[in-house]
Amino acid sequence: MSEFQDIIDSVKFDDKGLVSAIAIDESNGNVLMLAYMNKESLQITFESKVMTYWSRSRQKLWIKGETSGNIQEVKKVQIDCDGDALLFMVKPKGLGAACHTGHYSCFFRELKNNKWESQGTPLFDPNEVYKK
Amino acid sequence: MSEFQDIIDSVKFDDKGLVSAIAIDESNGNVLMLAYMNKESLQITFESKVMTYWSRSRQKLWIKGETSGNIQEVKKVQIDCDGDALLFMVKPKGLGAACHTGHYSCFFRELKNNKWESQGTPLFDPNEVYKK
Repeated sequence: MSEFQDIIDSVKFDDKGLVSAIAIDESNGNVLMLAYMNKESLQITFESKVMTYWSRSRQKLWIKGETSGNIQEVKKVQIDCDGDALLFMVKPKGLGAACHTGHYSCFFRELKNNKWESQGTPLFDPNEVYKK
Repeated sequence: MSEFQDIIDSVKFDDKGLVSAIAIDESNGNVLMLAYMNKESLQITFESKVMTYWSRSRQKLWIKGETSGNIQEVKKVQIDCDGDALLFMVKPKGLGAACHTGHYSCFFRELKNNKWESQGTPLFDPNEVYKK
């Protein structure tokens, strides 16, 4: 039994068995991404100190950065008042890009003049990193 | 028809018609809360520039701070790569407490020694603010 069992049991997972997980760059407080964890991925995250999500699209465990090398090392964990959202302060490794597009943050589009405008330059070329 | 219709249509709402909305204090980048919006609350938020969520527990529109006075004025909006999560940079009004417990942020509990420990002091007494 995991030493984190009580903590994991205190988290409220939704009707799909998932909890929201926000990753924050601990060095500057920027929001990197919002993804989801199930019990297993949360336990692995606690034990490995490496952000491990549940991919809803692929329906499998997803060690963030396992392909691109941009893993996220866990430094601090917070939970919200309802117990159904987690905040992880992380140290981005590799090139430090959280987004599969190569951007530093998944939230790289900003509303300007009633349009989503991309901000900043990708840190890697996804066609290179994810090539078959 | 709302001037924001195209932008609202570009957002991916889930099978319950909701999108995740993260509120950030624009003055310091701190994460205040994670809640949800449906199309109607997103449109109201865009038009009023005041964060208006959809309360999943009460199943109704929820102007954040309508009771406590701690409303959140929208300053900037970002969307993630998948289009299914929104980030709002807000200016907290009133006492600046996002949480119904009176705390500045809903994420006021931190994992320490395998327990959730409350950090900081509430900015208001919920028994006073929400009294019947």
